[in-house]
Amino acid sequence: METMPISKAFTLVEPGPVVLVTTNSGKKSNIMTISWTMVIDFTPRFAITTGPWNHSFAALVKSKECVIAIPTIDLLDTAVGVGTCSGADTDKFAKFGLTPVKGKHVRPPLIKECLANMECKVIDLVEQHNIVVLEGIAAYFDNSRKEKRTIHAIGDGTFVVDGRRFNRREMMKAKIPEGC
Amino acid sequence: METMPISKAFTLVEPGPVVLVTTNSGKKSNIMTISWTMVIDFTPRFAITTGPWNHSFAALVKSKECVIAIPTIDLLDTAVGVGTCSGADTDKFAKFGLTPVKGKHVRPPLIKECLANMECKVIDLVEQHNIVVLEGIAAYFDNSRKEKRTIHAIGDGTFVVDGRRFNRREMMKAKIPEGC
Repeated sequence: METMPISKAFTLVEPGPVVLVTTNSGKKSNIMTISWTMVIDFTPRFAITTGPWNHSFAALVKSKECVIAIPTIDLLDTAVGVGTCSGADTDKFAKFGLTPVKGKHVRPPLIKECLANMECKVIDLVEQHNIVVLEGIAAYFDNSRKEKRTIHAIGDGTFVVDGRRFNRREMMKAKIPEGC
Repeated sequence: METMPISKAFTLVEPGPVVLVTTNSGKKSNIMTISWTMVIDFTPRFAITTGPWNHSFAALVKSKECVIAIPTIDLLDTAVGVGTCSGADTDKFAKFGLTPVKGKHVRPPLIKECLANMECKVIDLVEQHNIVVLEGIAAYFDNSRKEKRTIHAIGDGTFVVDGRRFNRREMMKAKIPEGC
């Protein structure tokens, strides 16, 4: 995994992929699958929706740290599997053959098998709406990986994989943030 | 456009497509292109990130109403065009050949050319993070449309279209909300 400029890290979340979020309770690391994410600033800042119904939530709020990892379509069953069991009784890294990699800034691990990883700090909790606000502080991208297509959850148990890419940089040039 | 059960309406936003958001200032309707959206509840509730830098924001906050319309890949240049000019000096419906259709519950119009439309009420504004919280109250889907592939913005001026769909309903059955 190579370091990715933090100015580009919002592009990992902007297209709306399913993400894996790692947390560390102080005793152990866990992973949750989340589809409810949103960029809120290029700096980058993100909102994710989660709450006490997720076992990871307590560790996220207590430690104020997480890693957002981006799985690709070859990891679809892993992402669904991670999202349908609980860290309360499962070591998800072991169960799904995922490799935790130590980050530089936060205790929750990166996931080696993912296309990209971003170390994040929790900077706010909007309790009324179950929104957790994150700031990305370091990002990594695995350029050596052949499969780069991410996954989008529909929400009804079906998923769509990335198709063809279209370039509209010329039309959008006034709107593209610097460094992108 | 046929009515879509409101219990399924979150599935329009969950995969993270680029959306068009219509507003009405009392005098005229406008459209903005938004990629920063998130489901926050199945009921459905949504968060979108916007602020005073968007001409539509004043009408959105004042009227507390909008329509989320879902464009497909054949409308890519329309979505980019709508997002790169301002309602301050442009009638975007006229400029982009989009047809406003009267909704049942809110004053901002549906967009006839889109795959789906959802009438929404603004239920909260989290000013600190520029997050507007919406409740979807009625949804419509154009089943007669052949092109159903939506668009995902990367954020750097490129876009990805939906590819193949994968079914994991069996694996996820405990997690799929009723009516989906």
